[in-house]
Amino acid sequence: MNTSRKQQAPTPPSAADYLIASRQCELMNLQYFLQMGKVVQSISNLVHGLQRERGASNVFLGSGGEKFVNERRATIAESERLAGIFEQALAEVHEELTAHPVSSHLLNHIASALHGLEELPALRAGVESRGLSAAEATEAYSGLIHEFITVVFEAADTAVDPSIAGLLVAMVHLMNGKEFCGQERAVGSAGFSSGGFDGALSKRMMHLVEAQERCFEVFVSFSDDQSRELWQTLRANDREVEIERLRQLGCSVGRYKSLDPELADHWFRLMSERMDELKTVEDAVEGSFHTRCVERFAEARNSLAHQETLIASLDQQDTPSQPLLVLCDSGDDARAGESWNSDGVGQQFGRSIFDLVQEQTRRLQQMNDELQSAKEALEDRKTQEKAVLLLMDHRKIDNDEAHRVLRKLAMDQGKKLPEVARALVSMADVLK
Amino acid sequence: MNTSRKQQAPTPPSAADYLIASRQCELMNLQYFLQMGKVVQSISNLVHGLQRERGASNVFLGSGGEKFVNERRATIAESERLAGIFEQALAEVHEELTAHPVSSHLLNHIASALHGLEELPALRAGVESRGLSAAEATEAYSGLIHEFITVVFEAADTAVDPSIAGLLVAMVHLMNGKEFCGQERAVGSAGFSSGGFDGALSKRMMHLVEAQERCFEVFVSFSDDQSRELWQTLRANDREVEIERLRQLGCSVGRYKSLDPELADHWFRLMSERMDELKTVEDAVEGSFHTRCVERFAEARNSLAHQETLIASLDQQDTPSQPLLVLCDSGDDARAGESWNSDGVGQQFGRSIFDLVQEQTRRLQQMNDELQSAKEALEDRKTQEKAVLLLMDHRKIDNDEAHRVLRKLAMDQGKKLPEVARALVSMADVLK
Repeated sequence: MNTSRKQQAPTPPSAADYLIASRQCELMNLQYFLQMGKVVQSISNLVHGLQRERGASNVFLGSGGEKFVNERRATIAESERLAGIFEQALAEVHEELTAHPVSSHLLNHIASALHGLEELPALRAGVESRGLSAAEATEAYSGLIHEFITVVFEAADTAVDPSIAGLLVAMVHLMNGKEFCGQERAVGSAGFSSGGFDGALSKRMMHLVEAQERCFEVFVSFSDDQSRELWQTLRANDREVEIERLRQLGCSVGRYKSLDPELADHWFRLMSERMDELKTVEDAVEGSFHTRCVERFAEARNSLAHQETLIASLDQQDTPSQPLLVLCDSGDDARAGESWNSDGVGQQFGRSIFDLVQEQTRRLQQMNDELQSAKEALEDRKTQEKAVLLLMDHRKIDNDEAHRVLRKLAMDQGKKLPEVARALVSMADVLK
Repeated sequence: MNTSRKQQAPTPPSAADYLIASRQCELMNLQYFLQMGKVVQSISNLVHGLQRERGASNVFLGSGGEKFVNERRATIAESERLAGIFEQALAEVHEELTAHPVSSHLLNHIASALHGLEELPALRAGVESRGLSAAEATEAYSGLIHEFITVVFEAADTAVDPSIAGLLVAMVHLMNGKEFCGQERAVGSAGFSSGGFDGALSKRMMHLVEAQERCFEVFVSFSDDQSRELWQTLRANDREVEIERLRQLGCSVGRYKSLDPELADHWFRLMSERMDELKTVEDAVEGSFHTRCVERFAEARNSLAHQETLIASLDQQDTPSQPLLVLCDSGDDARAGESWNSDGVGQQFGRSIFDLVQEQTRRLQQMNDELQSAKEALEDRKTQEKAVLLLMDHRKIDNDEAHRVLRKLAMDQGKKLPEVARALVSMADVLK
């Protein structure tokens, strides 16, 4: 604790050393997020590229290889470029990620995403040769995109700072909502281009609209002001009304009524614009996230430096008034304490370190309390996914249907979705 | 992914690299607990030493400095020895704790505990000079012991392996229960030696009995079989009946009825024996914990080696059938994938890595599910402490009274204590 003791090699670490270490631990987590920010950004871009590639591939396959031939090639080239940037961002943080690993889950989902990228050329070849249906290609692209979003989700779970965790929760829910929007685009394109929606298609569309809204709700409650404003601008755009009109058209017209297939292009264009605008909101969240990381890192570094100065000054106060402490620095365990109660300065020193430790305890406690809501939002997502899997398994129904059952349960019981999901998961053992 | 690619320096990390990293992350957490085990053990011993020192100091102060003069000196010497062992165990893990810090909370509570140790000589001098009352000395010792138990609690919170987390939850609740037992010994000693219990003393005693039981319940639900058997042997001992009789005597006799002061020695001896036996149960949990860490570490290391072999063999399968992949290893991003879909081997390789990643996802998911109950037990403790602080603050009552209010709420509502505590904490903002 006092510098005089530090000069002796085998001195056990002191309270002050661990107080500093506690602050350094916070600082390291912030530094890690400064680096992870680049990975998250590159994932956001790559996901957007893959969504475009999926859209172009769908049109290509839907038109029997007639439409979007060049557009599709361009989206592939762009995805390749973005995948390269992602891999580079990952390579930069690789050492940090693997030498001081924070989460096996995060690392495993990175493995999963990288594996998906490695398989991407095979998927593209399948589209090129038209050996896959539009639905199969959509499913394969969606699986890959889901893996990338899960990486961001797992990264959010490793955040310690509540404001940083909150922005990552906003980010991951926005990405998720945008992805549901992308899937809705694909479903709508299939419906409009075939001239009508059957029951399954319109059900799926309604599910995707609902799922989007839930994601955007969570996004709104965790986002920063600027991103929320951009979001409200998007919502106020006339395009939203037109999309709503087409949705109604799609969901209310039965399989035997036919729609103008020209609507397919209109729908695709509107939804693509919407996704591009959602991407600008995502970029804004990304920007706020980066700014916040830089700010919090600077704050934490200054705060650490301040603590170090404070502790050093306590040492200096301590040393001159207690020359015996320095002279008799024999390493005897009882020594330091005995000199402490011999005069007031030791006590005062003791009290000051005590105050600093107490202050850190309060700070950490408060951060933990604030972190709770972000952790709960992440936990809710996990629980809902688990509840959906349970229902799928138990009732032999598909993902959409399981979501519907869950929503109906919530509506019937007048409870929130996460609450119903939790109850279901906790009852799973009994219901087996 | 394939070894041929690794020979090139700037190759981005592959799915297989991250799969291995995910396993290594688990292994590192286990290795850390192998080391932290020594610290936990030294804390268990030191806490026991401090509890003895507190007991001896109480008798010394209660007897006006007549009794336990030498016993107290002996306990101090023993505490000093145990503190030295703790500091050494900490010094051994110091590098690991601070270079790859896992938790600012843990580090800060270590700071707090070390600070308490640094102040211990002043406390002892206060007892020696009889400048402190028995109650003041008890409070100071109890505060220090509480800090050490909190270190184990925070360590438990950093465990990733469910069985290891579970044993640490058992450990920390047993330590906590034993500490309440130690406080009960002090309260009982004060009551019996003064010839009677006033309302406050008997209320406090009842609170401590209740709090002990709750801790032991959690201990039983998380402990290993062997420790649970030792615990049941302790419970079956005749001493328990005698302690119960004395408890009844203390709590039912009013302040105006006098008790034989000779009972004080009898009580102190019985309770000390009980604590020593609780310590042997604690040692058994500690032993199981160590065994489990060693086992899990060996398992995880073997499993990692197995995965590495598997991946290497996949590489070998891959290489001869795709000579082009090796020869044309130009680092072109699209290359690997293009050769993949050229024949079935690439696909098979892809599928195998996919299987390994999927298997790891399932494993981690299952571990997470199993970890939940341990995390909930830790969370419950935190929530209850928070609820008690809220009540103390809101109603201006003391700690014991707040515990009583909470217990009464649970009883009246027919709910469990953690549930009531959670409801209270979640309503705190509204009730302000």
